[in-house]
Amino acid sequence: MIDMSEDIVKKLASGELKLHQADEHSTSRREAVDMRREAVSMLTGADLSNIGKYSYDPEVATRKNIENAIGAVQIPLGIAGPITIHGDYAKGDFYLPLATTEGALVASVNRGCSVCRAAGGVTVAVMQDEMTRAPVVKAKDLKEAKRLADAVKTPEMFAEMRAVVGTTTRHGELLRVDPYVVGRSVFLRMAFDTKDAMGMNMVTIASDKVMRELEKKFDVKLVALSSNMCTDKKPAAINVIEGRGRTTVAEVIVPREVVLERLKAAPEDMCDVNYRKNFLGSARAVSFGFNAQVANVIAAMYIACGQDPAHVVEGSNAITSAEMDGDDLHFSVSFPSLPMGTVGGGTGLATQSECLNLLGVKGGGTPPGSNARKLAEIVASAGLAGELSLLGALASQDLAKAHAKYGR
Amino acid sequence: MIDMSEDIVKKLASGELKLHQADEHSTSRREAVDMRREAVSMLTGADLSNIGKYSYDPEVATRKNIENAIGAVQIPLGIAGPITIHGDYAKGDFYLPLATTEGALVASVNRGCSVCRAAGGVTVAVMQDEMTRAPVVKAKDLKEAKRLADAVKTPEMFAEMRAVVGTTTRHGELLRVDPYVVGRSVFLRMAFDTKDAMGMNMVTIASDKVMRELEKKFDVKLVALSSNMCTDKKPAAINVIEGRGRTTVAEVIVPREVVLERLKAAPEDMCDVNYRKNFLGSARAVSFGFNAQVANVIAAMYIACGQDPAHVVEGSNAITSAEMDGDDLHFSVSFPSLPMGTVGGGTGLATQSECLNLLGVKGGGTPPGSNARKLAEIVASAGLAGELSLLGALASQDLAKAHAKYGR
Amino acid sequence: MIDMSEDIVKKLASGELKLHQADEHSTSRREAVDMRREAVSMLTGADLSNIGKYSYDPEVATRKNIENAIGAVQIPLGIAGPITIHGDYAKGDFYLPLATTEGALVASVNRGCSVCRAAGGVTVAVMQDEMTRAPVVKAKDLKEAKRLADAVKTPEMFAEMRAVVGTTTRHGELLRVDPYVVGRSVFLRMAFDTKDAMGMNMVTIASDKVMRELEKKFDVKLVALSSNMCTDKKPAAINVIEGRGRTTVAEVIVPREVVLERLKAAPEDMCDVNYRKNFLGSARAVSFGFNAQVANVIAAMYIACGQDPAHVVEGSNAITSAEMDGDDLHFSVSFPSLPMGTVGGGTGLATQSECLNLLGVKGGGTPPGSNARKLAEIVASAGLAGELSLLGALASQDLAKAHAKYGR
Amino acid sequence: MIDMSEDIVKKLASGELKLHQADEHSTSRREAVDMRREAVSMLTGADLSNIGKYSYDPEVATRKNIENAIGAVQIPLGIAGPITIHGDYAKGDFYLPLATTEGALVASVNRGCSVCRAAGGVTVAVMQDEMTRAPVVKAKDLKEAKRLADAVKTPEMFAEMRAVVGTTTRHGELLRVDPYVVGRSVFLRMAFDTKDAMGMNMVTIASDKVMRELEKKFDVKLVALSSNMCTDKKPAAINVIEGRGRTTVAEVIVPREVVLERLKAAPEDMCDVNYRKNFLGSARAVSFGFNAQVANVIAAMYIACGQDPAHVVEGSNAITSAEMDGDDLHFSVSFPSLPMGTVGGGTGLATQSECLNLLGVKGGGTPPGSNARKLAEIVASAGLAGELSLLGALASQDLAKAHAKYGR
Repeated sequence: MIDMSEDIVKKLASGELKLHQADEHSTSRREAVDMRREAVSMLTGADLSNIGKYSYDPEVATRKNIENAIGAVQIPLGIAGPITIHGDYAKGDFYLPLATTEGALVASVNRGCSVCRAAGGVTVAVMQDEMTRAPVVKAKDLKEAKRLADAVKTPEMFAEMRAVVGTTTRHGELLRVDPYVVGRSVFLRMAFDTKDAMGMNMVTIASDKVMRELEKKFDVKLVALSSNMCTDKKPAAINVIEGRGRTTVAEVIVPREVVLERLKAAPEDMCDVNYRKNFLGSARAVSFGFNAQVANVIAAMYIACGQDPAHVVEGSNAITSAEMDGDDLHFSVSFPSLPMGTVGGGTGLATQSECLNLLGVKGGGTPPGSNARKLAEIVASAGLAGELSLLGALASQDLAKAHAKYGR
Repeated sequence: MIDMSEDIVKKLASGELKLHQADEHSTSRREAVDMRREAVSMLTGADLSNIGKYSYDPEVATRKNIENAIGAVQIPLGIAGPITIHGDYAKGDFYLPLATTEGALVASVNRGCSVCRAAGGVTVAVMQDEMTRAPVVKAKDLKEAKRLADAVKTPEMFAEMRAVVGTTTRHGELLRVDPYVVGRSVFLRMAFDTKDAMGMNMVTIASDKVMRELEKKFDVKLVALSSNMCTDKKPAAINVIEGRGRTTVAEVIVPREVVLERLKAAPEDMCDVNYRKNFLGSARAVSFGFNAQVANVIAAMYIACGQDPAHVVEGSNAITSAEMDGDDLHFSVSFPSLPMGTVGGGTGLATQSECLNLLGVKGGGTPPGSNARKLAEIVASAGLAGELSLLGALASQDLAKAHAKYGR
Repeated sequence: MIDMSEDIVKKLASGELKLHQADEHSTSRREAVDMRREAVSMLTGADLSNIGKYSYDPEVATRKNIENAIGAVQIPLGIAGPITIHGDYAKGDFYLPLATTEGALVASVNRGCSVCRAAGGVTVAVMQDEMTRAPVVKAKDLKEAKRLADAVKTPEMFAEMRAVVGTTTRHGELLRVDPYVVGRSVFLRMAFDTKDAMGMNMVTIASDKVMRELEKKFDVKLVALSSNMCTDKKPAAINVIEGRGRTTVAEVIVPREVVLERLKAAPEDMCDVNYRKNFLGSARAVSFGFNAQVANVIAAMYIACGQDPAHVVEGSNAITSAEMDGDDLHFSVSFPSLPMGTVGGGTGLATQSECLNLLGVKGGGTPPGSNARKLAEIVASAGLAGELSLLGALASQDLAKAHAKYGR
Repeated sequence: MIDMSEDIVKKLASGELKLHQADEHSTSRREAVDMRREAVSMLTGADLSNIGKYSYDPEVATRKNIENAIGAVQIPLGIAGPITIHGDYAKGDFYLPLATTEGALVASVNRGCSVCRAAGGVTVAVMQDEMTRAPVVKAKDLKEAKRLADAVKTPEMFAEMRAVVGTTTRHGELLRVDPYVVGRSVFLRMAFDTKDAMGMNMVTIASDKVMRELEKKFDVKLVALSSNMCTDKKPAAINVIEGRGRTTVAEVIVPREVVLERLKAAPEDMCDVNYRKNFLGSARAVSFGFNAQVANVIAAMYIACGQDPAHVVEGSNAITSAEMDGDDLHFSVSFPSLPMGTVGGGTGLATQSECLNLLGVKGGGTPPGSNARKLAEIVASAGLAGELSLLGALASQDLAKAHAKYGR
């Protein structure tokens, strides 16, 4: 086996075989991963031995998660918390797994968690829960475009579309269809309940079938199954306004003394920093994100928990509000677009599974969807903890010092 | 040691010791990581043994990259390519390391690479190279705000600010300062050459010192060292327009036959899909991203190469243009805001180092900055490959089929 | 009367009487207008005699349209057309009244009209017709905010709200309510059918009553009857996406020869100009407007027809698409947000009435709403004519020449 | 003449003569206006007699401001004020001419003026003063695009471009050129000092000449003299960020008692309304306008003063900030993009001239530019007065009542 392997490695390196052909020319996926890595190492002269140390199951992962695998990249994992959460799904104290390479992040979230705990905990709720896909068709002309747009708003057509969706998935459910007409192009933004799955694959397959049916009934041609009105992984106002994924809001009321003691800042200063930085600054920068650093926290939790890290783009659309509540601080973070799932994607990989278990959200929930919503409540609370902490640091003006200490 | 460890683990689990105190109560950082993980495992009932398998150096990483470390999360790593690149820094064929858990992504980029190769390669250039930080101050009143804004536009004050920056960094250099006045708030967006570093820490420390000096000369109070006009990790038009990080454009001219054979689509159909999806769709969705999936590719390359994954937010601001060039396809992707570095951050971790070595961009370049720019050229080319491939798939309408095959 | 008038004028000029008190100290509104104008003339030394020549009825206008009136400003009125329109409401040939001071505009629209006529006419349709108002309340906390947001989505509560609206207006009708929660703030975007009225007053009064009722049932406090989620007269993505006023799309298919002969440009060049200017340019400028000059045409028609010129802000959110249709040009302009009415506002003034009569849309239509929709179809068609003409001019590169000739 | 006129009118009505041919077939422009109006009246059956009463000079206006003129539309003109202004150009008390058809607007601004006066006056300053035009060229390829973009950043090329501009205008001056590259398209955003002119014509002509020269030196083709990166009359972030026209900020500090007495609201409530409406609301609506109603005020002043009403689009990009200043109210409005001029456009028309005289800003200033800046300071102050008043009305919750009283 080793001899054959070397022969194949050479062929991979010479280009006689393509990298993906290692799969067919090996006795196991693990061997294929090794041969490919060896070939790339030969080709580039780079030692890739640490990449070769991985613990996911290559037989599964190379079929579901990765092509041309050569191993794994490791992201350091830290723990923040516990944070006390009063959600509809997440109830109690949680330790937060954060995968990051940026010094100071875990410490920052950790501080926020302790503030939230001292304040009695975070209230959090999922306000809306919809994964969207928006195919675009080119109609014969404006009239036909309008005919289609009008039709999908009728209960009859909607029922038909729901039924078609039902033939493609046991879990997913079509919730609504919003048509948008631009000239003779029609965009159908379809929103689905995807239960515990993040749902992009499910809704893509369902949308495809729906569109095939519509093509039969209207003089339209499917141009792209995913137009940019979904909007997937691009900053987009439609996600801010309409929501995408698990739309979640988290809130904490921090007593004045807690702010003063733990954040070394007055509540009024927190409000002023938030106003000038997150509102005046974002307004003049024309930003969709009226927050300080939610992207950091979301990225770290998403990577730990097997989520798609490119969804940090949607996640960063958050609005942080700091308001006086009498003498205390009313603090909230509103996340219009947090795609998330506890089944599928990277959730089944060895280390990611462990992080989900750590939070008690692995796999499908009972009832379906409850695990994903619980995870959303936890991620939103983590984001709030990060905001509290960073705004506190800015209000007490020690950000540069923190960077100097941890960052390098 | 093992006995003591158990004792400490119990104290960590009971809360008698805080998680970060494991560092002080251990003989090594490795041991602290183990004890903390053990404690979290006890607290949550989750088996975390795979998280415990990591190859980064805990003595270094727990001081620079992560607090409260318990191990690492593994992201499967695949290889796409080679892709032929004609850059000012990246020249020749490159294999692209992509860390992802989303099936079909590596295969998609790989297809794009082969199209680019068949087309003779990608032309790519870094158009601008600036990392920004924008503190906000509150001035006494509008008059004082204007006095500050006017002053920083004078050559004298700029020279002073440059000199202050010089006392905080050997590498960084202040390039320009743009003042924005909103009422009595003044935002000073400072742009720096950070050479091979992504540079956020460097510019934060430099900005802090600059602001301390300005506070002495003007009747202003620093409110936040980082206002949202930087704009860091939030979707923001200012980054699209002014650029942030390595502003890069990649272009390929694909002969008609190559499009037809390898993408199974006509160049005209590619243009139509791009127009309707990436322009009409993004226009109506009010998006900053006029592209199909650059966030996927950037996330995968950033994670592989030790970059900050939250910077995918800025990275997703790309414009993909598909145009006819006679009968051929002129295809380009313009990235206004790609933060990136080859030193600092996660670049020194074991697996990330290997990925950077694989690309020949590890550490500081000669001249300084050349490695980071080379990496930017490679990432931009990878992004272009991903766009070509996905738009081709949409044009030939097999996206749903690809998802069905790879996605689950 | 003249003596008294002089005495009053002096008191107005000296400040002994306030300007609005002229109304009480005069025998007629006309006299009050004259005295006020005389006083302002004395105070500023400016001759205001032309302003004094006006033909509206001061008894009506000073009660409904203007306070502290001193006369009128005159905007030159030109005529473009005829343009052939195939709408659901506007059918046939129309002459377009355009009130503007900018040379070249009427000529430009006129040229567009002749192209549209030669092409067989414009197809146009109103896709959606809703005027919106979005009050914001501050709830006791997130929980109460969610309770309100959930409640307004129930059929029972919606029926109640509709009934309350019914007590405030005979014409208006509540169509839907979309709740948005940001922390503990709840924004209720209410959409109304306002028939032939533009409807802002109607929906403000209706919303006020609705909110008073909701304040009784929920622990919330009305903060502003009009939050910026309406969004009235500010550029806002929510209007682009959700629509506001008369959402209208206009289309024309221009035969190749007509483009070549009348616009002196090839259809392909029109498409290229539109793509590079209106899409690449707007994308990089981060604009909501993917068009060339619709604001000019809308402003001119709005002023002529007694519409609120500040609504040009919403109107400018249009998307112009130029596409090849075989060898011909498929050209469309999509207007997501065109507020408009044929009753109320400035529609009753003497000159504005004449313009509305000229178009056959004065007053309430049969059925109600049909006149306003007819006007929307005409304005959208005029906008399309302006786009065709300007893009043609750019494609044939004689914009600067046109400006040099007409502009000054 | 009268007989001939009737004959011509018939020919105009029958289409034998085109409307613009009335100019050639008349003895004066006034007669042509009459004949055209008569023809349109015949064609549409509408009485247009009030439109026929106008006082501008048809010999001038029909050559500079309007084609196919048939008369004028009258907009009622009201006066608000006086308002006390402490600007660099506007100093003292000013009466504000507001042309509007919307009841309550003048009364609202008037109330704001009285608050500003009681508060000691408005401080206002022009922060930047640049009119922009951004042609777009298509380069041979990315390399050539970069060559052009790099070149225009050199002092040598900039000096050449300035010199070319100098051959086209005595008044205008090129201030800077910002190149933006998207694929192979290059957008050159050129900023000019246009002195007292709004300047669009001037910069269009200058840009045309500059581009002709650049086409000779680079392998590029001018696609559109005005790309949408100018950005003219479309909502665009580039204008918010970079500014366009007269970038102006106005500020007033209103003592607590004055707020309470005149606005019937507490300063804290003003801040809360502003925060929730203008920030939370605009954030979630994804708006460029963080203000209440500046568009209303700008539209009314622009129409009165002969400005281009379509520039209300840019003007509406304003940020209103209400902040506590001890117990008092610090209130400001920042206008990044206020195009404005006191020569050219509609400024020479009879009634518009009178309004400019009323403000003491008619024609070119000494030094050049000072009149336009003075007008900008006045308009910004008027906008601030409108904001104060409306936010006060919302804070004391009588908006609906005001509409009910004045609106209809």
